[in-house]
Amino acid sequence: MRYALVLGGKRVRPFLTYAVGSICGAPSKALNHAAAAVECIHAYSLIHDDLPAMDDDDLRRGQPTCHRAFDEATAILAGDALQTLAFELLSDEQLELPAARQLQMLQVLSRASGGRGMCGGQALDLAATGKQLTEAQLSQVHQLKTGALIQAAVQLGVLAGHDEAQLYFDDFSEFAGWLGLAFQVQDDILDVTSSTETLGKTNGKDEAANKSTYVQLLGLEQAQVKLAQLHQKALQALQRIPYNTQLLENFAEQLLNRDH
Amino acid sequence: MRYALVLGGKRVRPFLTYAVGSICGAPSKALNHAAAAVECIHAYSLIHDDLPAMDDDDLRRGQPTCHRAFDEATAILAGDALQTLAFELLSDEQLELPAARQLQMLQVLSRASGGRGMCGGQALDLAATGKQLTEAQLSQVHQLKTGALIQAAVQLGVLAGHDEAQLYFDDFSEFAGWLGLAFQVQDDILDVTSSTETLGKTNGKDEAANKSTYVQLLGLEQAQVKLAQLHQKALQALQRIPYNTQLLENFAEQLLNRDH
Repeated sequence: MRYALVLGGKRVRPFLTYAVGSICGAPSKALNHAAAAVECIHAYSLIHDDLPAMDDDDLRRGQPTCHRAFDEATAILAGDALQTLAFELLSDEQLELPAARQLQMLQVLSRASGGRGMCGGQALDLAATGKQLTEAQLSQVHQLKTGALIQAAVQLGVLAGHDEAQLYFDDFSEFAGWLGLAFQVQDDILDVTSSTETLGKTNGKDEAANKSTYVQLLGLEQAQVKLAQLHQKALQALQRIPYNTQLLENFAEQLLNRDH
Repeated sequence: MRYALVLGGKRVRPFLTYAVGSICGAPSKALNHAAAAVECIHAYSLIHDDLPAMDDDDLRRGQPTCHRAFDEATAILAGDALQTLAFELLSDEQLELPAARQLQMLQVLSRASGGRGMCGGQALDLAATGKQLTEAQLSQVHQLKTGALIQAAVQLGVLAGHDEAQLYFDDFSEFAGWLGLAFQVQDDILDVTSSTETLGKTNGKDEAANKSTYVQLLGLEQAQVKLAQLHQKALQALQRIPYNTQLLENFAEQLLNRDH
């Protein structure tokens, strides 16, 4: 569990929880737990996605994947227990939040992670291997597989915040939706433009696995145009929020110009 | 998910939640969700335990195991999403319970299922394969692997109940602790005395896998004595509860005299 959780990674999701939570005046203990919970879900999903029966990956974050460093049974169980830990962290009674608000956070995280969220997206993704998807289908896969959890990370930050911030729940969510999709388009672009060494995971993997990607659907240049459009939409959603969201703008900028 | 969740099984855990909950005056909607949640956790654990990298079982409840009926990737994801569903069910905002009580239920279920509960027990069990355990070690493995969730099933029923019932939380928990251990001793006995056909899963599996069991540690006769002692302790814990617990006494009687 520790190996998969704390050894590196970009920490995109916990950063979003902390950033949005601090904008919305959330207590820091609640944010610690929420950010850790969302990263536990992310880490568990990576362990299981990397398993031989799934994507069969040897390398993750520049290190051997969990089942390579240990064994398959350990990797399955570590993933399982990391998922449980997420819900244990979020149901802690000492978070200085109204209990009803905490229940909403648990709802948000469980809905985003389960069969109608991240797990469902992974199932669709596996089912789509070797098939040509339309752009609408591809974006649905990504919305579930990656977008739902990025959105949940932002929503947890809002829900941990003060009452007034709840008025902007939908605007924050929309920002997260566009950002998540842009993040995925960027991922597809990096898969063809970046080296394995820079990525810390095997590059060219999507093409080798015969998976639909934005680059393959739209071409590299149009995928880059798409990325810029999604980025703009994310910023527009932020503009409707009357708080100082500079931190989120800067983060989107850095995230979408990353090279790994 | 449906295949593993609704096709048979003894429903020991949801029965306990319903029985204890009705004794403690819990609203039925809360019990429906709690009972379903605990069965989701149980079903997910069976799917993952049966995987080739774990116990590598072909048969469960008289049917092909999930990864045999579908494939390994589907089985891993179905298990993952069933775990998530448990927490989604328990965090529903319409359960007619105080939100703080619901958070306690989420705490109980997550602690019982995770790295310090069921998952941890499964990891210890795998690590113990081929090693000779003492009776104390064996009972620790079982307390985590099976006992923790049976205890949680009972605790969820109490927590969904009225305020006064909370006074007997520890007595109900102790009942569940002894019952869970007795259930496991009975399981070990059935593994050597029952046929594969009656069990609905492969018999003699423990010995073949070179696993420590109560029968192998104590001999069949002393294991049966142990079972009777644990049964008595469970009944004694019930006697401290000033409600009508006849339903639980009858259930313990039937459960511990079962032949599959």
